[in-house]
Amino acid sequence: MSKHKVIYDTDPGVDDAMALLFQVRHPDIELLGVTSVFGNGTIETTTRNALYLTGKFAPHVPVARGAGAPLVREAPGPLPFIHGHNGVGDIALPADDQLGGTLDPRPAHRFIIDTVRAHPGEVTLLAVGPMTNLALALAEAPDIAGLVKQVVIMGGAFGFHGILGNVSPAAEANIFNDPHAADQIFNAAWPLAIVGLDVTERTIMNAAYLADLRDAGAADGQFLWDVSRVYHAFHLSSEGLDGIFTHDASAVAYLVRPDLYTTRSGPVRVLTDGLAIGQTIQKPSTMPVPNPAWDGRPAISVCIDVNAPGVLDLYRATIVRG
Amino acid sequence: MSKHKVIYDTDPGVDDAMALLFQVRHPDIELLGVTSVFGNGTIETTTRNALYLTGKFAPHVPVARGAGAPLVREAPGPLPFIHGHNGVGDIALPADDQLGGTLDPRPAHRFIIDTVRAHPGEVTLLAVGPMTNLALALAEAPDIAGLVKQVVIMGGAFGFHGILGNVSPAAEANIFNDPHAADQIFNAAWPLAIVGLDVTERTIMNAAYLADLRDAGAADGQFLWDVSRVYHAFHLSSEGLDGIFTHDASAVAYLVRPDLYTTRSGPVRVLTDGLAIGQTIQKPSTMPVPNPAWDGRPAISVCIDVNAPGVLDLYRATIVRG
Repeated sequence: MSKHKVIYDTDPGVDDAMALLFQVRHPDIELLGVTSVFGNGTIETTTRNALYLTGKFAPHVPVARGAGAPLVREAPGPLPFIHGHNGVGDIALPADDQLGGTLDPRPAHRFIIDTVRAHPGEVTLLAVGPMTNLALALAEAPDIAGLVKQVVIMGGAFGFHGILGNVSPAAEANIFNDPHAADQIFNAAWPLAIVGLDVTERTIMNAAYLADLRDAGAADGQFLWDVSRVYHAFHLSSEGLDGIFTHDASAVAYLVRPDLYTTRSGPVRVLTDGLAIGQTIQKPSTMPVPNPAWDGRPAISVCIDVNAPGVLDLYRATIVRG
Repeated sequence: MSKHKVIYDTDPGVDDAMALLFQVRHPDIELLGVTSVFGNGTIETTTRNALYLTGKFAPHVPVARGAGAPLVREAPGPLPFIHGHNGVGDIALPADDQLGGTLDPRPAHRFIIDTVRAHPGEVTLLAVGPMTNLALALAEAPDIAGLVKQVVIMGGAFGFHGILGNVSPAAEANIFNDPHAADQIFNAAWPLAIVGLDVTERTIMNAAYLADLRDAGAADGQFLWDVSRVYHAFHLSSEGLDGIFTHDASAVAYLVRPDLYTTRSGPVRVLTDGLAIGQTIQKPSTMPVPNPAWDGRPAISVCIDVNAPGVLDLYRATIVRG
């Protein structure tokens, strides 16, 4: 098979870093570029981290700096208790002029437009932060909706197992951080799949799994261990979970092994105001009741179930042989 | 044990009728009164049906006529394709002056206030229609929150198994029909349990079950069969289900056998505008993230799982021995 040509839109972020390494090491993925976005840190932090991560693991891959704030709302505050003060778990970083990555001069949304147009029908947009860059690209060049191969996002929650959110009772962080952008990209005529909390919170890298990665995964394994210490401690104190949820890496797993997921089809709306701002609500295609707010919008594949051991095996096999 | 003293707030409605007979026949329930509300039909229809049903099955139980419209929204239209043109599955009804029930002169909310005050700490409000009467009672007499034994409602949906609604992608009918009333009664300091779609749609009376009720249940069984023909046909055409969901009767089952249900505790808000108007959203008490819209409101018990065979056995045993 030909490789998946991927633009990775990301706000690193610990799990973003773990998902980047997954892509770099996976033989079926060709990373065309990394685009940064605010989210788990400021745009300065996430861009710096993207340059560091590509410099370390994929120095040929360009990084384009993206949006620093949502389309409408204000930018969120920092999350040092989740991702560390430096956004990558407080591991030691080189000086800014020693990061080693390659900064593309274009803004992220322009990089996306140009790259998609250069490879019509071939590019996958893999977006694991707020959807602002994708919305900006779509607004400037609506033609890209017909030119991408597919869009896979990590975000949202649909209530399977009763979970509708993590930053509020009804909202997941990536969507909450730019609900207007998400609602726009869910209305574009591109094939889009959503990998949300319904599956990412059910794919758990527990303490033993992480220790095994560290011990068996050579330098990569040690990096994954080091970068995830703050993140792991957060899950333990916040959720009582001695391990971590597999958020962003699940979007990569879906891309290369969609057979590990069960999906439900139907249009998705995002609430852009009110108590439940940031909530993602799908109208299943099987629902008989008409509703003008959903009807006529594109069908989206929402992940509703996962073969979690399969995903965890895939991640390990990719890292340990890498 | 002493019996549950129940005021049944209802909008009959086919499943309301099936739940009324369940209460009348259950030895642990003492029905103090029935209060009608708009919903499955107009207030004229549901009050007439309440008088018919009590006249037929419990002629000593008074019926008080309740609200004809929601607190803020407009009253919904008729649902002949679900509950029949007469609201009780188009079974033959006596003339209006031959119904046999006893009409209490007080409005429903006043009947509720007086009855709760007359039996402090003893009355259960079992509400299976829009929550308008309860909200009106609470507004006029906030002291009843401290005087009822408990409130059990059928309504809402919390996403377990991915179901958030039946009249919209995010709303269940009873809550949708008066979301403001529901949000108010969820903010009162009374013990409240919610029996929503998460469990009612998983408790299915299939065609064989209904036929067995008919054959084994003597006159009651024949009545349940007759009253449910339109309702059954609706489920078949709308959901592809050769059977019916057990909506209102599940609230009765929860009252007498709470051990058949698993619940989750936490405050519940109702969206009163926007795309998802009528959605019920719980903040689980285990959720660590603060949120001022939920925090400080009363913890509510939300049914999230059910022993469905146990509920079906209970219903049959109650009817067939009746």
